Amino acid sequence: MSLLSESHYLRILDEYFSVGSRDLLVPRGDDAAVFSWKSPLCMSSDLFIQDVHFRHSYFSPQDIGYKSLAINISDISAMGARPLGFDMNVLLPVWVDEEFWRGFLQGMSTLAGEYGLLLLGGDLVKTDRFGVSITILGDGSGRHLQRCCVGPGDILFVVGNPGLAGTGFCVLEKGEDKSGFEHAVKSHLRPELFVDIALSLGKDSSVKGLMDVSDGLLADLPRFVGESHGVELTVGREDLHPEVVWYADKNGLSPEVFALQGGEDYVLLGGCSTEGFEEIRHKVPGVLKIGEVSAKQGVFLQGEQLELQGFDHFSG
Amino acid sequence: MSLLSESHYLRILDEYFSVGSRDLLVPRGDDAAVFSWKSPLCMSSDLFIQDVHFRHSYFSPQDIGYKSLAINISDISAMGARPLGFDMNVLLPVWVDEEFWRGFLQGMSTLAGEYGLLLLGGDLVKTDRFGVSITILGDGSGRHLQRCCVGPGDILFVVGNPGLAGTGFCVLEKGEDKSGFEHAVKSHLRPELFVDIALSLGKDSSVKGLMDVSDGLLADLPRFVGESHGVELTVGREDLHPEVVWYADKNGLSPEVFALQGGEDYVLLGGCSTEGFEEIRHKVPGVLKIGEVSAKQGVFLQGEQLELQGFDHFSG
Repeated sequence: MSLLSESHYLRILDEYFSVGSRDLLVPRGDDAAVFSWKSPLCMSSDLFIQDVHFRHSYFSPQDIGYKSLAINISDISAMGARPLGFDMNVLLPVWVDEEFWRGFLQGMSTLAGEYGLLLLGGDLVKTDRFGVSITILGDGSGRHLQRCCVGPGDILFVVGNPGLAGTGFCVLEKGEDKSGFEHAVKSHLRPELFVDIALSLGKDSSVKGLMDVSDGLLADLPRFVGESHGVELTVGREDLHPEVVWYADKNGLSPEVFALQGGEDYVLLGGCSTEGFEEIRHKVPGVLKIGEVSAKQGVFLQGEQLELQGFDHFSG
Repeated sequence: MSLLSESHYLRILDEYFSVGSRDLLVPRGDDAAVFSWKSPLCMSSDLFIQDVHFRHSYFSPQDIGYKSLAINISDISAMGARPLGFDMNVLLPVWVDEEFWRGFLQGMSTLAGEYGLLLLGGDLVKTDRFGVSITILGDGSGRHLQRCCVGPGDILFVVGNPGLAGTGFCVLEKGEDKSGFEHAVKSHLRPELFVDIALSLGKDSSVKGLMDVSDGLLADLPRFVGESHGVELTVGREDLHPEVVWYADKNGLSPEVFALQGGEDYVLLGGCSTEGFEEIRHKVPGVLKIGEVSAKQGVFLQGEQLELQGFDHFSG
């Protein structure tokens, strides 16, 4: 069934996201929502647009709803903050019917429910591609885990599997056989989130900084260590998810370089003191040391300098 | 000159919006911004998209930058709140060059500067039409001026000129001669804002509610008075801006009905007690009584029921 009017669109939205909440002084539906979350607050924003961030052909409506919110939660958690609520502006093409809209909202509201997130408002416009623009707020009362806070000798680590989502993207985009790449495909469609881990890392004083990797480690590592530092990577094929290694081998690529280039990882990239890393390794299962910060600019893998690249909207 | 890369895009952005501010614990540029504005806060969000909300042919880049932010400020002020900061996600087609981008930022940053608004972050994506998605935050510590708070006998008033922006839209869209319609054209390209007036109305206990009119008074009046009430309008041609009357007369339309249908007014629509209106009339120059709330559903103009209509993204 087609979406017939704004009130039809909103009536369905209200079925998936309740309007009232004790946290809100004024809920969505008026000129503005008003909330009384205590200061300080974190705010981040991400677009999720058809044929740029997802393909209608291999993302289910539920996946689109899930991932468009997940990438925003990832940003908030990488600041060491707990997500609280979000608003959503929707670009709505004519092909979006009630079934798609319900699927999208189901994927999104299930994820929102896991974190107790409130929908605070939004806008809609009829256009030619589907897309959402989300702004998310989080509780910023803890320590703020920023970029550019590490120095030479500090350990660089990741939580999550670098290159796994990139592998899934390649398999899906080229229409290849998905068998054997189930984790990779899932990682692209529904990235794993590390909110609790990020919150616990924020309480560990040996952790100096944190960010979420969205443009590939090769592009994001220099942003994390800052202009005056470089990176000595020690990551090897044994550290990578087997599906990443298998895909790279099959295609005659270096698994390490392929993993470092993969975009939309949404893994956490962190830095900590050498002494602190042992404790983090015990506390965070699956945390992976990928190298160290160095005083020499550039990114080096096993001593060999890598050409910096990664996703740029102007070239990609 | 073309925009060459994300860093080129951001370097120009930073020229118009300073990154640092004492109000921000973490400025834009990291995973999230962190601010310490005191609770409660207001939040609102609006899209502003090429060929839906503006035409490239008659909006200058400066106008686009101005209006995309102005419509968000209008929402926050209609809640009786002072705007503080915003984030901006940009849809960027290939034709946007450095000259357009600078013009856009100049129009936006001049307006932001008038209200001391900070830019908190954003995202960008390459796409086929230009557009922006803005989320704005405001100081919600005053009284919240909501909809559906008026009752039978209350006075309905507006601040601003209903139908003036709609007149400008018709003149611009049809490519008609603009001479004699300078105020109308300006009202469509650069809507006047009433932030200080809205703040002062919030302090007046006789004011029961306020909203900004974006879809035309005929569409927004029922939203303002609520489902169980109606409206008796007494507005006459002598109450309207002369350019609205002239345009309607020229085109054989009823000036009153034409003014009530005009979209994108961004006038304030308020409701107050009968006794309170006299004081408001003295305090707010140009405030116009348009009618009264009635117990009878429907919108009536000089006793005659009007067919409800106004902009709907699904039909318009």
